[in-house]
Amino acid sequence: MPDLDGLNVGIVGLGLMGGSLALALAGKVRRLIGVDPAPEAASLALQLGLVQEIVPMNAATTCDLLVLAAPVRAILGCLAAMNELIPEQGLMVLDLGSTKSAICEAMQSLPAQYDPVGGHPMCGKEVSGAAHAEASLFQEKTFILTPLERTSPQAVQTALQLIAHIGSRPLILSADIHDRLAAGASHLPYLSAVALVLAAENLQDERIWQVAASGFRDSTRLAGSDLTMMVDILMSNQAPVLDSIEWFQTALAGLAGLVQEHDEAGLRQALEKAMRRRQGLTASYRT
Amino acid sequence: MPDLDGLNVGIVGLGLMGGSLALALAGKVRRLIGVDPAPEAASLALQLGLVQEIVPMNAATTCDLLVLAAPVRAILGCLAAMNELIPEQGLMVLDLGSTKSAICEAMQSLPAQYDPVGGHPMCGKEVSGAAHAEASLFQEKTFILTPLERTSPQAVQTALQLIAHIGSRPLILSADIHDRLAAGASHLPYLSAVALVLAAENLQDERIWQVAASGFRDSTRLAGSDLTMMVDILMSNQAPVLDSIEWFQTALAGLAGLVQEHDEAGLRQALEKAMRRRQGLTASYRT
Repeated sequence: MPDLDGLNVGIVGLGLMGGSLALALAGKVRRLIGVDPAPEAASLALQLGLVQEIVPMNAATTCDLLVLAAPVRAILGCLAAMNELIPEQGLMVLDLGSTKSAICEAMQSLPAQYDPVGGHPMCGKEVSGAAHAEASLFQEKTFILTPLERTSPQAVQTALQLIAHIGSRPLILSADIHDRLAAGASHLPYLSAVALVLAAENLQDERIWQVAASGFRDSTRLAGSDLTMMVDILMSNQAPVLDSIEWFQTALAGLAGLVQEHDEAGLRQALEKAMRRRQGLTASYRT
Repeated sequence: MPDLDGLNVGIVGLGLMGGSLALALAGKVRRLIGVDPAPEAASLALQLGLVQEIVPMNAATTCDLLVLAAPVRAILGCLAAMNELIPEQGLMVLDLGSTKSAICEAMQSLPAQYDPVGGHPMCGKEVSGAAHAEASLFQEKTFILTPLERTSPQAVQTALQLIAHIGSRPLILSADIHDRLAAGASHLPYLSAVALVLAAENLQDERIWQVAASGFRDSTRLAGSDLTMMVDILMSNQAPVLDSIEWFQTALAGLAGLVQEHDEAGLRQALEKAMRRRQGLTASYRT
């Protein structure tokens, strides 16, 4: 496999993530082509100059590297279709899906001409679509790779090159560890944001939206996430998500108990533990 | 009571809120003096030019308006002390405490020379102290007033003038409604942020902090809030906080059930309800 700048790269899915990747890779690869079944997304991508050409999926298998940038179940659909599309030469496949176990399992059974590796850049916005794409989306963000047993060392090397080029920090994990950590760090915060909004609505007093300040706004930002993406995540990561919810409910019930018993010392201790941990997190963020 | 620009204003507590109020009122009132039992806070306030003078509490009762800007139980301590300090002339008292029932109850029994009104500006930062004070802290924010039966119409008028001068939007509520709405919009989001951090720690895998991206960071920002302020809030607003936790746990358990049963249509419907509500909230924010 040549260096990144010698590669023909195809991006399947030209939404926020695919579009941002196209911008971040512009000028750094030999050629960028796009695949998107939605005509509006395809024409927007051309209009924004994200890719040089839009091609159908079967034509994209002539690339050196195919990046699947779509919601989890759309990626699974893509991988199923790829079983019928045998590339003439070796084709590296990297996906950007939000959960990894189901995708890596599907990748494992791709025809031998494919050289697949799982990926997940830990970034996003509460808006979707290529119109919001930015080259800087991946900068200083963690980009997780979940190589399969069959993934070649060259494919891992190319993926690491790509990650370095777009300014991300690589983290190599197994698919199941990824899914457990992402459940706690991302899927659970999403569900808690949703539940905060639903609990606020439950007060049935419209004035609560005037009382809600920046704390509520930040705490519930994820509730505005793209629905299709989130439903796919929750449906494809059921067990880790349910485990995370259970830990969270236990932690919250513990806090509620301390409030109820007026156990001020115990409450302060629990709150302080979380505060210290959260402050350490802030210190580790570069931006 | 003269207009705001004719008033001598005393601010008790020169932290983030009191300091920011001093900056926001600078040049808009006749004189600004400060009270703070902590020598470092007092000298920082003078050094930053927030107030013209630092005086002991008993000297502050010669003002026209006394603003109590401290954690809830410090305000309660102040009000208890004020029972022994009878001002020679009428003295309007406005507090900025985060919960209102306990404070308004204590205000109700102040000597007749006082003219008290409860207040709560819905703003803050995850940092504390006058060093972080800014005049713009209150701009475009909701400022809740909880007048008592004994509050004079003039005191409400003066408070509304002050709110207009610092750029906030007034919202008049009873103390108990305030406490119920603040529990759902502020105290519950704080506890859910704490529980998210504790649940993430429960995974006992340090890599989760690398996986945690901006969604986790925003969802847990409140976990870094000032501990004394939060313990005071939770200890003084027990019943509404526990009610909110219960609604929240019910909402989250409902979502968990839909995930567990793979009820995709039901899940999507619940998520969409929260998304629409949250999007409406974003649209209503001016900043």
